[in-house]
Amino acid sequence: MGNGEKLKEECGVFGAFSLSTSVTSYIYYGLQALQHRGQESSGIAIYDGEKINCIKGLGLVSEVFNKENLKTLEGKMGIGHVRYSTTGSNDIINAQPLVANFKNEYMALAHNGNLINAEELRGQLEEDGRIFQTTTDSEIILHLIVKNLQKGLIEALLETIKQIKGSYALVILTDNKLIGIRDVNSIRPLCIGKKDDTYFLSSESCAFDVIGAELIRDVEAGEIVIIDGKGIESFKLEVEEKKMPCVFEYIYFARPDSVINGRSVYFTRLEMGKRLAEEAPVDADLVVPVPDSGIAAARGYSLKTGIPMGEGLIKNKYIGRTFIAPDQRDRETGVRIKLNVLKELVQGKRIVLIDDSIVRGTTMKRLVSLLKNGGAKEVHVRISSPPVKYSCYFGIDTPTKKELIGARMSVEEMCKLIGADSLQFLSIEGLIKSVGLKSICTGCFDGNYPMYVPKEGSKYLFEKK
Amino acid sequence: MGNGEKLKEECGVFGAFSLSTSVTSYIYYGLQALQHRGQESSGIAIYDGEKINCIKGLGLVSEVFNKENLKTLEGKMGIGHVRYSTTGSNDIINAQPLVANFKNEYMALAHNGNLINAEELRGQLEEDGRIFQTTTDSEIILHLIVKNLQKGLIEALLETIKQIKGSYALVILTDNKLIGIRDVNSIRPLCIGKKDDTYFLSSESCAFDVIGAELIRDVEAGEIVIIDGKGIESFKLEVEEKKMPCVFEYIYFARPDSVINGRSVYFTRLEMGKRLAEEAPVDADLVVPVPDSGIAAARGYSLKTGIPMGEGLIKNKYIGRTFIAPDQRDRETGVRIKLNVLKELVQGKRIVLIDDSIVRGTTMKRLVSLLKNGGAKEVHVRISSPPVKYSCYFGIDTPTKKELIGARMSVEEMCKLIGADSLQFLSIEGLIKSVGLKSICTGCFDGNYPMYVPKEGSKYLFEKK
Amino acid sequence: MGNGEKLKEECGVFGAFSLSTSVTSYIYYGLQALQHRGQESSGIAIYDGEKINCIKGLGLVSEVFNKENLKTLEGKMGIGHVRYSTTGSNDIINAQPLVANFKNEYMALAHNGNLINAEELRGQLEEDGRIFQTTTDSEIILHLIVKNLQKGLIEALLETIKQIKGSYALVILTDNKLIGIRDVNSIRPLCIGKKDDTYFLSSESCAFDVIGAELIRDVEAGEIVIIDGKGIESFKLEVEEKKMPCVFEYIYFARPDSVINGRSVYFTRLEMGKRLAEEAPVDADLVVPVPDSGIAAARGYSLKTGIPMGEGLIKNKYIGRTFIAPDQRDRETGVRIKLNVLKELVQGKRIVLIDDSIVRGTTMKRLVSLLKNGGAKEVHVRISSPPVKYSCYFGIDTPTKKELIGARMSVEEMCKLIGADSLQFLSIEGLIKSVGLKSICTGCFDGNYPMYVPKEGSKYLFEKK
Amino acid sequence: MGNGEKLKEECGVFGAFSLSTSVTSYIYYGLQALQHRGQESSGIAIYDGEKINCIKGLGLVSEVFNKENLKTLEGKMGIGHVRYSTTGSNDIINAQPLVANFKNEYMALAHNGNLINAEELRGQLEEDGRIFQTTTDSEIILHLIVKNLQKGLIEALLETIKQIKGSYALVILTDNKLIGIRDVNSIRPLCIGKKDDTYFLSSESCAFDVIGAELIRDVEAGEIVIIDGKGIESFKLEVEEKKMPCVFEYIYFARPDSVINGRSVYFTRLEMGKRLAEEAPVDADLVVPVPDSGIAAARGYSLKTGIPMGEGLIKNKYIGRTFIAPDQRDRETGVRIKLNVLKELVQGKRIVLIDDSIVRGTTMKRLVSLLKNGGAKEVHVRISSPPVKYSCYFGIDTPTKKELIGARMSVEEMCKLIGADSLQFLSIEGLIKSVGLKSICTGCFDGNYPMYVPKEGSKYLFEKK
Repeated sequence: MGNGEKLKEECGVFGAFSLSTSVTSYIYYGLQALQHRGQESSGIAIYDGEKINCIKGLGLVSEVFNKENLKTLEGKMGIGHVRYSTTGSNDIINAQPLVANFKNEYMALAHNGNLINAEELRGQLEEDGRIFQTTTDSEIILHLIVKNLQKGLIEALLETIKQIKGSYALVILTDNKLIGIRDVNSIRPLCIGKKDDTYFLSSESCAFDVIGAELIRDVEAGEIVIIDGKGIESFKLEVEEKKMPCVFEYIYFARPDSVINGRSVYFTRLEMGKRLAEEAPVDADLVVPVPDSGIAAARGYSLKTGIPMGEGLIKNKYIGRTFIAPDQRDRETGVRIKLNVLKELVQGKRIVLIDDSIVRGTTMKRLVSLLKNGGAKEVHVRISSPPVKYSCYFGIDTPTKKELIGARMSVEEMCKLIGADSLQFLSIEGLIKSVGLKSICTGCFDGNYPMYVPKEGSKYLFEKK
Repeated sequence: MGNGEKLKEECGVFGAFSLSTSVTSYIYYGLQALQHRGQESSGIAIYDGEKINCIKGLGLVSEVFNKENLKTLEGKMGIGHVRYSTTGSNDIINAQPLVANFKNEYMALAHNGNLINAEELRGQLEEDGRIFQTTTDSEIILHLIVKNLQKGLIEALLETIKQIKGSYALVILTDNKLIGIRDVNSIRPLCIGKKDDTYFLSSESCAFDVIGAELIRDVEAGEIVIIDGKGIESFKLEVEEKKMPCVFEYIYFARPDSVINGRSVYFTRLEMGKRLAEEAPVDADLVVPVPDSGIAAARGYSLKTGIPMGEGLIKNKYIGRTFIAPDQRDRETGVRIKLNVLKELVQGKRIVLIDDSIVRGTTMKRLVSLLKNGGAKEVHVRISSPPVKYSCYFGIDTPTKKELIGARMSVEEMCKLIGADSLQFLSIEGLIKSVGLKSICTGCFDGNYPMYVPKEGSKYLFEKK
Repeated sequence: MGNGEKLKEECGVFGAFSLSTSVTSYIYYGLQALQHRGQESSGIAIYDGEKINCIKGLGLVSEVFNKENLKTLEGKMGIGHVRYSTTGSNDIINAQPLVANFKNEYMALAHNGNLINAEELRGQLEEDGRIFQTTTDSEIILHLIVKNLQKGLIEALLETIKQIKGSYALVILTDNKLIGIRDVNSIRPLCIGKKDDTYFLSSESCAFDVIGAELIRDVEAGEIVIIDGKGIESFKLEVEEKKMPCVFEYIYFARPDSVINGRSVYFTRLEMGKRLAEEAPVDADLVVPVPDSGIAAARGYSLKTGIPMGEGLIKNKYIGRTFIAPDQRDRETGVRIKLNVLKELVQGKRIVLIDDSIVRGTTMKRLVSLLKNGGAKEVHVRISSPPVKYSCYFGIDTPTKKELIGARMSVEEMCKLIGADSLQFLSIEGLIKSVGLKSICTGCFDGNYPMYVPKEGSKYLFEKK
Repeated sequence: MGNGEKLKEECGVFGAFSLSTSVTSYIYYGLQALQHRGQESSGIAIYDGEKINCIKGLGLVSEVFNKENLKTLEGKMGIGHVRYSTTGSNDIINAQPLVANFKNEYMALAHNGNLINAEELRGQLEEDGRIFQTTTDSEIILHLIVKNLQKGLIEALLETIKQIKGSYALVILTDNKLIGIRDVNSIRPLCIGKKDDTYFLSSESCAFDVIGAELIRDVEAGEIVIIDGKGIESFKLEVEEKKMPCVFEYIYFARPDSVINGRSVYFTRLEMGKRLAEEAPVDADLVVPVPDSGIAAARGYSLKTGIPMGEGLIKNKYIGRTFIAPDQRDRETGVRIKLNVLKELVQGKRIVLIDDSIVRGTTMKRLVSLLKNGGAKEVHVRISSPPVKYSCYFGIDTPTKKELIGARMSVEEMCKLIGADSLQFLSIEGLIKSVGLKSICTGCFDGNYPMYVPKEGSKYLFEKK
């Protein structure tokens, strides 16, 4: 819950193509439903029949857009993006969608994911005399597509995905097409929706619910989906795909009301809680979730064990992202202003405190102390995923290994650090079974990535040292 | 949950007096903990050793205050206020604390409550040649105190509370004292806290938790508490008190982690849910709370009945107070962007949907339809309080009777309107037993007010018709 | 021109009363025409047929008002105010118009001037049990009027001006009247205008030109003008008036296109320049005005002497009030960014540099050095008023005597300080003749005030030490 | 003076290179001195020793920059830009300086001028697979330089200016160099300054005065100036140069205190006024300038004819760029709020009203009527340049021919339209003699451009129709 305590999701993308109606408000609502995937910048690009207009800015969708500027963005095709920066600093110049002009054509692109061969690709493009105006890897993709465009759009796209390595869920807008692309390992989510004669692309299906659209299906690994006046067409690279969707979408990133790769996110979390109860039972009086991240797993834990669940920690719903302590007198206050212990409930009880993951451990330590000061007799911490031990190269902003408590310490040491009476994590096997997919990327837990990862990357790769 | 659906709490007040340290950040944190009691304006007044400085503005505490302007407000005594307007329009001139200058002295006042004889009192003061610069009833209290000040402070305060009728929890700041006053019926809450050598007054005890202070006791009905360098002194009017605290603080207004009049708010809600289960059982598969207002009662209902509870409605935590729909195409979207149904969970199930109250009924209607469209087989609505049928004259902004669905319709009609399979409310007796106090104001349910109420009031009383 | 170099005018007031049309945009334009009289806060109060609505804020008229908030202010009667604070700090609570509510009536008041018996009056009112919410002397006037209102409006106004001493040009708005009052010495300007069936009151006639109204006449010394549905009525206190209008309005404050007390401001300045030429001739090649304050006098000097005038100092018109130097490396840059020397014009020439007054001398010193560094052979400074030696108690913010260069130094010493080849001031006699009125207040030059002035005042009189 | 009445200057550029000190505040002050050349966007790019940081935004220099963001921009080399858009719409994406990243190098570019072969060049670059992210022609120059960079920087620059046709004053920043380039016709101004060990480039010399630097010389037609640690080096294309600087810089655009191509702007304007007096004398009582554009020419006219000059039109100095009329009742008020007639001065007089140019004629019509309503007996309009009849293709935003009153009407017709008693313009010969350069571009008056101009251009060239 605390800033810096959770891994940061990278981005959310959304696209809409209609034959009959302006899609601007669909995209606006869609991005708000995806806001949890990125809060640093927001942008919408709309083709108005003549050209692509784009408005983007730093901040939430509700901060960047208002009735007046949305009015200037009407059109039947468009894409949108919410961003938490993984490559390139948090600067307006790096906000997406990126828009390119060339030969009287427009192309806009929004990207969720991270390329691992960005440096080589950019080097080659620069050799070629090309210049870059952002420090994002997404600009590389735009260059590659345009470079190959003389072979035709489909060929250019296929050529591009042959060259880029890493994770990418892309929505692309041209003068007459909406395009969705998902990487060959389908690491980042992307799905297709429909309402009347309007097609949608979205990082998550929860955005379809908001606008009353229906989830059709996921874009598949390595698939290019092209939506235009004739409907949907699909193209695929002739490579052996190896589906390895990111497991952290199920653990924490995605909204519980989304369905990703055919699996309900809420149910996978419920399942993780149940398996955690099997793997790590404890004699206790009350299951307390860390709000909101631990709620679904706590529910599962409670259902399995029969131990009642209760709101032992209460959230202040008016404390926003931007809380700033006016003085440094009391660092504890920063946590207490966001979460308060419900002393009457926890007093004298043996508590099972449940959260989805532990990254740095500092917030968990404060929560345990909050509960103990509130009168809890015992606090047993149960985590519905294994310890995070490795960096992610595919679109999640993981701290350095030094900061990852799971990489530095044994479970016993962690338990001592956070001051809990016991601490247990869900096993990797339990996690995989909970999700129920044939294969999945668990790189952050065990280092098994979908592809060879050359070296420690950096989100400031293209900003000179 | 929807705007307009819930009754509006009126205000929160907070005060601090220290012998050794600046209290500004305490008040800042305290007001943030009380933010749920009013989001229209925020203000802090601090005595700096020479004079009272006051900063107030429209908006949340976090919007009105920042590191820079807090720096200009240091001092060892101060009060603060968050406001939702019940008398006087939402205008900066009406923001509190009010500050008066006279004879080289300062007095600042923050008020939660509503006077029912404001018109008469103001008329008398005006006869006397006094002028008013706001349209709040709180300014009347300030005039009365100052008018009587030549008799000494205590006498002036006693004289004032002899004259004012209605509800009031007051915190007052002078050059050397912090004063707390609660009306003779103790309608609005006010309690005393302490940390080291600093005393606090607060509408709710949750604010003490945030700053690490301890709840000492409630200010009692008709009590005047004076805090200064010598400690706390208490004065009382020689009248027969008749404690009738507002029941809606327990139902909805107060934070669950507060203790009011010695009763834990969370536990009263849990109890309401349990009694509701007894009074209005139903054969169902899943208890779904309306987040966040129905959570505690749903928990009680689930515990009592054994029917499992689940997150059937998912909140978008990034949709703030200020959500504005960009177009009118789809009014439904306004609800769906805030709450989404978790279809995978509710599909095919018989749902008990639990909320704390129904005011207008429009949001409840949309939620029932959301659940049914999401696949719920049956939706049984259970409300953990009786139907709201009467206006409040004591500090709650109730809609007119015409808008109160409970005043216009029978329960059967309401059930039909919201499209539920069944609808039941907690009885007044069940409610009273759940709270467990000897006497309590249930005027909004049965018209039994703590005092004679002359006629329909208006929050714009002092703004000419 | 420099901040801190010029004396600060105190305020501008404007009022409008129409039988047929909304006056809001008249007041908006009128205040913009009076903006030179105060830039710290702006406010408009309008009677909408039921009540007085008031919007005020810190900043220029164009910053406080916009199309949207002006729309909420429509009505046929209203007053406005622009402020530079002379009593009370620059705080939103002190912004005018002040609005009072009492007995279902409204009264709004805007004041230009300064009371010298504010302390005594406020003391008496406080004895009486009245409270103050601002630290302005204008609030005292409002209290006095309301206190006496039971005798009838006219009597209350006459009673009030019997008690208040000092300077005041007042515009007052009630539910059905617009009232203008000018002090018995007519120190501050106030005049009456008319357009169709709308009457206006304004500090200066230039505001009438802007809205296409005609100047009817000045409000006279000690006169109360009441405008309502029946037309204009006039009342006067039976005291011996002693007209002594402020001479500095003619020297610097008023706009050149205003006519005050029947005298064109531009022509009095032209005349000051001519008389300065007679009193202080010099053998020179070019007359250079300090823009914009010295232009009219320089024109007169040039006309009288035949020495050509030229734009030797060029203003950067994009540098606003709020210029802030990013670093302290070069304090000179602050002056140069606002005014640049036109080297090609001044090179090798003997310059007569003309300004209206010298207060602290720091800017004049920089301008002389700017001209000399630009190649001027000689720089002779001529000032179209005498040295400022005394504080003003009637609405002008004069520095303390310590800061007034004219109070500390002889003309020779000043000349040496600013580095000029010669320095001469217009004589008091020359000044009086230039204005051409029978009597005039020249207190800041010779200490002869219109009334006995008890002691050094302070603009923070009512803010505790 | 009125919006839309004056031709719009295009841009101002500024650069600084120091061996010892941070240049950020120099650039900040320099841009403020050049603010008259563009008010739509402002930007500064600084090389900090590692990379180029750039801050840019819509608005004035004082609106985009503040102490805090300037602090993040320290470095010894940098460039800046103020913009009024001539190619590309007024959008943040089009703000300059443009910054390119490639092969671990940075290049920033700021451009004043307009390319006439932008379409062809961009087409070729797009053929090549390059993409554009702005709709400015300046981005083309950046692409061309980078494309040729493998031949070395000097060759790349020479190659680039061989290809681009039109007007350009460029300042370019690399990791170790500051570069200035002026087109072969030297249409737009660019000059070199020095202070201690810091070199400067600026559109106008007035910026050097502000920071205390000295004007060294103009960059010459077709010259490339390279400033680095070794000092200044100069390169020139081996083409026959044909100097044709823009005459409108002398008539209106440049600040009077600038020296361009060795000629004082103020003196050329004084001279235009004198020659206008010779060519178009009139029997009159008073010369009145339109402030501020007509002041210098009016001065010359007055000097030559002996007719005295007077401030017949008074400017409101608080009315900024952003004046918005609150209602449409009185369109005249828009002019009167900015300029008021000094009735006392013009009454009964025969006026010569002098301005620098007439574009649409609407404002001049209002000024003549203002003067006549103010009592002027006769109003003779004299313009210190010929009628504008042709569009500019070299960096000035001229209205379409339909809107140019000089292209549609004879002088007699114009005179009738504006309601003057007589109207006369300076002849082209008189204009050329006043400036005193061997050759000069007078294309907007006679259609004689420095090069063949293919067709009507558009500032929205690269934004799809």
